[in-house]
Amino acid sequence: MMRLSAVGEFGLIRRLTRSLRTDRDVVRGVGDDAAVLRVSRRCWWLLSTDMLVEGVHFRRRQATPYQIGWKAMACGVSDIAAMGGRPRFAAVSVGLPARLTVAEAEGIYRGLTAVARRFGVNLVGGDTVRAARLTIDVAIIGETKPGAAVLRSGARVGDRIFVTGRLGGSYPSRKHLTFTPRLREAQYLMRHARPSAMMDISDGLASDLWRIAEASRVSLVVDEEQIPVSRAAGSVWHALMDGEDFELLFTLRPAVARRLCRTRPSWVRMTEIGTVVGRGAAVRLRRGDGRMRVLRPEGYRHF
Amino acid sequence: MMRLSAVGEFGLIRRLTRSLRTDRDVVRGVGDDAAVLRVSRRCWWLLSTDMLVEGVHFRRRQATPYQIGWKAMACGVSDIAAMGGRPRFAAVSVGLPARLTVAEAEGIYRGLTAVARRFGVNLVGGDTVRAARLTIDVAIIGETKPGAAVLRSGARVGDRIFVTGRLGGSYPSRKHLTFTPRLREAQYLMRHARPSAMMDISDGLASDLWRIAEASRVSLVVDEEQIPVSRAAGSVWHALMDGEDFELLFTLRPAVARRLCRTRPSWVRMTEIGTVVGRGAAVRLRRGDGRMRVLRPEGYRHF
Repeated sequence: MMRLSAVGEFGLIRRLTRSLRTDRDVVRGVGDDAAVLRVSRRCWWLLSTDMLVEGVHFRRRQATPYQIGWKAMACGVSDIAAMGGRPRFAAVSVGLPARLTVAEAEGIYRGLTAVARRFGVNLVGGDTVRAARLTIDVAIIGETKPGAAVLRSGARVGDRIFVTGRLGGSYPSRKHLTFTPRLREAQYLMRHARPSAMMDISDGLASDLWRIAEASRVSLVVDEEQIPVSRAAGSVWHALMDGEDFELLFTLRPAVARRLCRTRPSWVRMTEIGTVVGRGAAVRLRRGDGRMRVLRPEGYRHF
Repeated sequence: MMRLSAVGEFGLIRRLTRSLRTDRDVVRGVGDDAAVLRVSRRCWWLLSTDMLVEGVHFRRRQATPYQIGWKAMACGVSDIAAMGGRPRFAAVSVGLPARLTVAEAEGIYRGLTAVARRFGVNLVGGDTVRAARLTIDVAIIGETKPGAAVLRSGARVGDRIFVTGRLGGSYPSRKHLTFTPRLREAQYLMRHARPSAMMDISDGLASDLWRIAEASRVSLVVDEEQIPVSRAAGSVWHALMDGEDFELLFTLRPAVARRLCRTRPSWVRMTEIGTVVGRGAAVRLRRGDGRMRVLRPEGYRHF
């Protein structure tokens, strides 16, 4: 009897999804921040779900109900942003312990709706059930023009690698509960640069660099000294490994990168951290002394 | 401090959703089996989520992993069927306890995909996280022609009230784990009869009759002796109260009802159980001796 802990999250997802069959209206199914669905010739939709569980993604004593609701919806908006889409509709399933107060349940909804309103998401329903542990699952639908969704698989040799914001320390700083999804930045990038690949950093930079590398089948070199380390992270190790940054990780063609670095407005905070150097999935870190080492995907493990 | 148990599920949902604001692309938000979304002039989409929690909706010892997966996806298909739609895409969030075996996780996915394949649903992704209790949330998208979605609010005075199948005893008979969502029946009704109102019976016939009555602001009279009682229910009381039947409850204009009762094929099992008699939300039961009594919505309570 093999337990889940033996195969890990990615191994499990691979096992579970390898037999899925989909029709031609599914442009992209499992394996990106959101699925890409063909609605009509003029319109593609994005679909993503994010489940937050008490004791795993937050602790009731360390997060207010408002923050829990905020985080749940913000994760969904972040997924749609990372595909280059515009979030439109969300349905929320909530599992509520009977010991919760009505005020706490209302606090969760205030957090959910605050993000929804700010980013133009219509909250249109969902499910409310009893549960032993507080559980929130946000299903979010976004919109994109046909062909415009940015996948993890589009990075090409020569592309420059970027991140928004500063990384690491999301738990001690509570950023993981209060973060602003980078929708505005993503939409700026879509209008002015069209990233070749993009995702949001949820499991940690190291782990998520590997996802780009594997989806695009390319080899990445990241400059350790270029990684923007948040004050709460303290060290580049934490910036690589902590996770739940919800910043954007993206790649740009070199000419586009050069132009954007000159012309971007100051509110688009982005840092070039490396280059796509070749074919075949690999991620290496160039240390300050010039030495290279393979970067292992040791970010957050779900099991 | 008011606990959730004091306000009940419906009271809670009313409180939580009263401040929601949505734009004109939301044809119907909270309050039906699925939300109705305007995608384009030619296409409306339906969005629904259903969360199942171990210990609340199923017990691990009494349900196989396959049945748990089956039930989760079948609930979603049932919601879309009850709106008169065609299910198209689903994303599934799963909270998995670390003690689960890989074989059990695979069993859940086999159940999910069995329903998906049978009813033409593309399973396109979702989220996989750790959880103390097994939790599955299915977000499902369905398709309908503009104006064709059947709401709970369309019942009119004079309409006849129908249900499919036989009701009650869904827990002892394990029907709640193995049921066939009534998509085929719903699609037959859409082609040949166009119900004025429709929903699936999840919280119990009594409770769900009240939902139609309240949404349509009409008064229903149900003939106790006409209610199709399943063998496992044993009594009409259980058929009214048990819940999780996942049969269709719908209303038809009287002329349509007469025609359909003559012409329907034998596989469309439907029973006329009553009539919409007037305005103002009410549900009454006509007993065998002709006496009437108010039917209280005493079906399944989530809190």
